[in-house]
Amino acid sequence: MPKLSDRSVKMPASPIRKLAPFAAEAKKRGIKVYHLNIGQPDLHTPEEGLEALKHVDRKVLEYSPSQGYPAYVEKLVGYYKRYDIDLNVDDIIVTCGGSEAVQMAFMVCLNPGDEVIIPEPAYANYMGFACETGANPNNPTGTLYSREELMRLRDLVKKYDLFLFADEVYREFIYSDAPYTSAMHLEGIENNVIMIDSVSKRYSECGIRIGAFITRNKEVRAAAMKLAQARLSPPLLGQIVAEASLDAPQSYHKGVYDEYIARRNCLVEGLNKIPGVFTPMPMGAFYTVAKLPVKDIDDFCRWCLEEFNYEGETVMMAPASGFYATPGLGKDQVRMAYVLKIEDLKRALVILEKALEAYNAR
Amino acid sequence: MPKLSDRSVKMPASPIRKLAPFAAEAKKRGIKVYHLNIGQPDLHTPEEGLEALKHVDRKVLEYSPSQGYPAYVEKLVGYYKRYDIDLNVDDIIVTCGGSEAVQMAFMVCLNPGDEVIIPEPAYANYMGFACETGANPNNPTGTLYSREELMRLRDLVKKYDLFLFADEVYREFIYSDAPYTSAMHLEGIENNVIMIDSVSKRYSECGIRIGAFITRNKEVRAAAMKLAQARLSPPLLGQIVAEASLDAPQSYHKGVYDEYIARRNCLVEGLNKIPGVFTPMPMGAFYTVAKLPVKDIDDFCRWCLEEFNYEGETVMMAPASGFYATPGLGKDQVRMAYVLKIEDLKRALVILEKALEAYNAR
Repeated sequence: MPKLSDRSVKMPASPIRKLAPFAAEAKKRGIKVYHLNIGQPDLHTPEEGLEALKHVDRKVLEYSPSQGYPAYVEKLVGYYKRYDIDLNVDDIIVTCGGSEAVQMAFMVCLNPGDEVIIPEPAYANYMGFACETGANPNNPTGTLYSREELMRLRDLVKKYDLFLFADEVYREFIYSDAPYTSAMHLEGIENNVIMIDSVSKRYSECGIRIGAFITRNKEVRAAAMKLAQARLSPPLLGQIVAEASLDAPQSYHKGVYDEYIARRNCLVEGLNKIPGVFTPMPMGAFYTVAKLPVKDIDDFCRWCLEEFNYEGETVMMAPASGFYATPGLGKDQVRMAYVLKIEDLKRALVILEKALEAYNAR
Repeated sequence: MPKLSDRSVKMPASPIRKLAPFAAEAKKRGIKVYHLNIGQPDLHTPEEGLEALKHVDRKVLEYSPSQGYPAYVEKLVGYYKRYDIDLNVDDIIVTCGGSEAVQMAFMVCLNPGDEVIIPEPAYANYMGFACETGANPNNPTGTLYSREELMRLRDLVKKYDLFLFADEVYREFIYSDAPYTSAMHLEGIENNVIMIDSVSKRYSECGIRIGAFITRNKEVRAAAMKLAQARLSPPLLGQIVAEASLDAPQSYHKGVYDEYIARRNCLVEGLNKIPGVFTPMPMGAFYTVAKLPVKDIDDFCRWCLEEFNYEGETVMMAPASGFYATPGLGKDQVRMAYVLKIEDLKRALVILEKALEAYNAR
């Protein structure tokens, strides 16, 4: 049997999805599974997007341009203007989800052995994408949220002439009063910044696979276009939906935002009431990392799916160990997404508490 | 300015799409461009697929499983049975176009510096995808079409324990009477074969970005699933269309097949009538590589878009130099796709003849 590549051995399994086969087995046994493992919102896609789909009046579902449809790209320029981010159409490449934008950024910027500095816990698949390029994720000391921290980061990026990869897919989900500061706002490092974006979370459109790779660096852009042209084009139907969704009214965003705040409060307060559990109050996105009273989180998460149920129901969570680049960290933590409706979150909390009791009483 | 990765410098620009900006400029000047450069069929997508799209009755366009929807994968197993290819559902991973399947295959199987043996001229983007992994495309001596040739290839693959990447997206477009032999039919190398597939050409569905990565090698499959999970999921809407399209009746395929034979004959006969032009009769797919009476094909193809027009019209072709791994080959060849209707192909032939006259008279 021929040998696999070294990278495919090193490549970590996604902690978000690696337990999926066990969840599928649990469902086959008739068990209801509450999915806290993945940021798959249950909130509705904007009507504008769904309507556009019903009116696709094409006889051929043809390739779109490698950069994405010009009309969509132009509309994106307008969207970013709302956030005071000035872009040209040439700065944007439409991608197959934010995932492809991250892959492209790493492919264009990183050599095998290069170091990627990443705040922990981090989105697990960054590790995987770095692995594809042969680069090396490493852990730094802090997280990077306030404007002041971003200014300090800018100074470091400038001093050492680094690339800054800024994944800003959650800009609509910031729960503090501080103004949103984008990496694209930082002056003096215009050629260093690559912004990753996606409509997945913003419009509950994870399935259409539409993201964007955004940079003002013309060399990076040209190299990314070679990758974009090699894979031919981003999804056509997704672009139609995404373009129409940009017309969603402010009330859509307000409704979504308020709902997430309520869900966050429900989940975080509920978790902190369970003995031995602690989680901080997240100020953005719709995830929280919680410390649980277990020693081997991978074993516990798998056990929940394979061996446990409470009244025919169980929970699926993402072991947080996979969200750390430092070996050994996160062994007693899970990442949970608060993308379920409040009554489901409440039920999931009851099940989690029962699961912890049963697991620790074995 | 930070330095780009070595691979992004080495990465070739796609000869199929790199001239796209010049075509866009020509169109802005009001010139009609006949696209012979890209395999973008103008034949209709099956009604079954288009209808399915109109009936998408979802409120949330959510992630699909990383492997693809089980219903679609199961239906694919049935599709391959028609060709006497026996597969399990676990052998198939739905991808974002055949492009992603090629990327995955190379990522899983190739180390930096590894050699890829490829018949020339070859699909240009194989070179790009190999470049992404740091592997090294190399040229062999022959092409590999008949059953006898495939059997000899099998013996080599077995003897040296190689991976065999078989891109079989054109199985519906074989214009000889010989029976179709798939790499999946070859006995004794089951663990060596990865088949790449796509609905793009089969159903005129290039834009939906649905392909498949297929292997019976469980280790390769497990490694590919790690990549599949890192990028989360293949396009949801495309899967809906592709699944419904599998119900297209035999008459759909018959109509498409007959039309391509007529187009092939029109283009090939027309080309061979132009002084100094020669092209062989292709026996599969919908491309031909033609030798033109010019010395620098890249210059000629660009000149057609930038400086030439005949009665307000011009042609876009893919310079074949990019379809060879051997430097210097293909400098007087173009790749043309016969995906336009016959009257357009005839017009394109007139324009090409005029362009060659004008170019060589400069």
